Amino acid sequence: MKLLEERILKDGKIFEGNILKVDSFLNHQLDLALLSEIGAELKNKYGDCGITKILTIEASGIGVGCMVAQFFNCPLLFAKKTKTLNIKGDVYSSKVASYTHQCVYDIIVSKSFLTPDDNVLIVDDFLAKGNALNGLIDIVKQSGARLAGCGIAIEKAFQGGGDELRKRGIRVESMAIIEDMDCEKGTVTFGTRN
Amino acid sequence: MKLLEERILKDGKIFEGNILKVDSFLNHQLDLALLSEIGAELKNKYGDCGITKILTIEASGIGVGCMVAQFFNCPLLFAKKTKTLNIKGDVYSSKVASYTHQCVYDIIVSKSFLTPDDNVLIVDDFLAKGNALNGLIDIVKQSGARLAGCGIAIEKAFQGGGDELRKRGIRVESMAIIEDMDCEKGTVTFGTRN
Repeated sequence: MKLLEERILKDGKIFEGNILKVDSFLNHQLDLALLSEIGAELKNKYGDCGITKILTIEASGIGVGCMVAQFFNCPLLFAKKTKTLNIKGDVYSSKVASYTHQCVYDIIVSKSFLTPDDNVLIVDDFLAKGNALNGLIDIVKQSGARLAGCGIAIEKAFQGGGDELRKRGIRVESMAIIEDMDCEKGTVTFGTRN
Repeated sequence: MKLLEERILKDGKIFEGNILKVDSFLNHQLDLALLSEIGAELKNKYGDCGITKILTIEASGIGVGCMVAQFFNCPLLFAKKTKTLNIKGDVYSSKVASYTHQCVYDIIVSKSFLTPDDNVLIVDDFLAKGNALNGLIDIVKQSGARLAGCGIAIEKAFQGGGDELRKRGIRVESMAIIEDMDCEKGTVTFGTRN
């Protein structure tokens, strides 16, 4: 998506450790018009799939998730992060390793809101190693719902998570795919996937 | 707002300890059409105030915040919760006591995104004792921005936070105001302000 690539080049900031900071428009301050364009584009991609639910993860997935769900006229469901050791029986749960925070946390989704009748599009702001996405996919599997695919704002392809999911036959559509970043030169190289 | 009151009566669940669970439409699974109606109503209330930024707090404020910000054609900014003890100098921070989680946490907002030129509408899903709201108001003050007021989905008026803010001269508009809840009878009594 040209609009998102241009915005990354204009307002994104690259830091050591492959960190891309886009908090002026994607995950601290949110540009709703841009997120709405992402929603429209994902509607183009998945519009004929009979999506019944958008699934994301708190906190920074919620913004893009809302704008996508609007286009599909279906609810947004967000997985909650928890450090509670006693997971109650009325939730699906999975473990997610956080690269940023160097820890493992549980994510939970109430069983009431995801059933075998659902056809799910997973949405998130970032895809790097795919840890959060794998947790969400695990939860969709536990629920017996169908997974239509994933819709991502920014994929850091050089961290491999997206291509690993594609190899497993999971459809992943990313609005901007970063093949390479150089924090010294300040350059970002975009790529494409099918 | 009749629509929200009716939805609370239909889908809300009351538990001991004054807990109202609305996770089927407001803070786990989100009904975007309903949140959009809240956005439209807050636009009616604050439309002539020259709002430049919607401010909320992660995670459950983000959904309603997005839908409100769309109506004001301005960015949504969400405060992040953190347990990091070393707050860096480039953020505003405030302390918030959590009634639900029985702890105190820091909330932070990047200084880049809130300036004296801003005119802020604070938005959140719930208002009970007003702890989160007071933290957000503190951050607006630190930034030198103007506070136009607060827009809340559900105010639990019997917990006093909303009326305390009104006494201090802060404008608070709540889409549903709960005067009383009875978990044994399963009843909810709504009220009005102004």
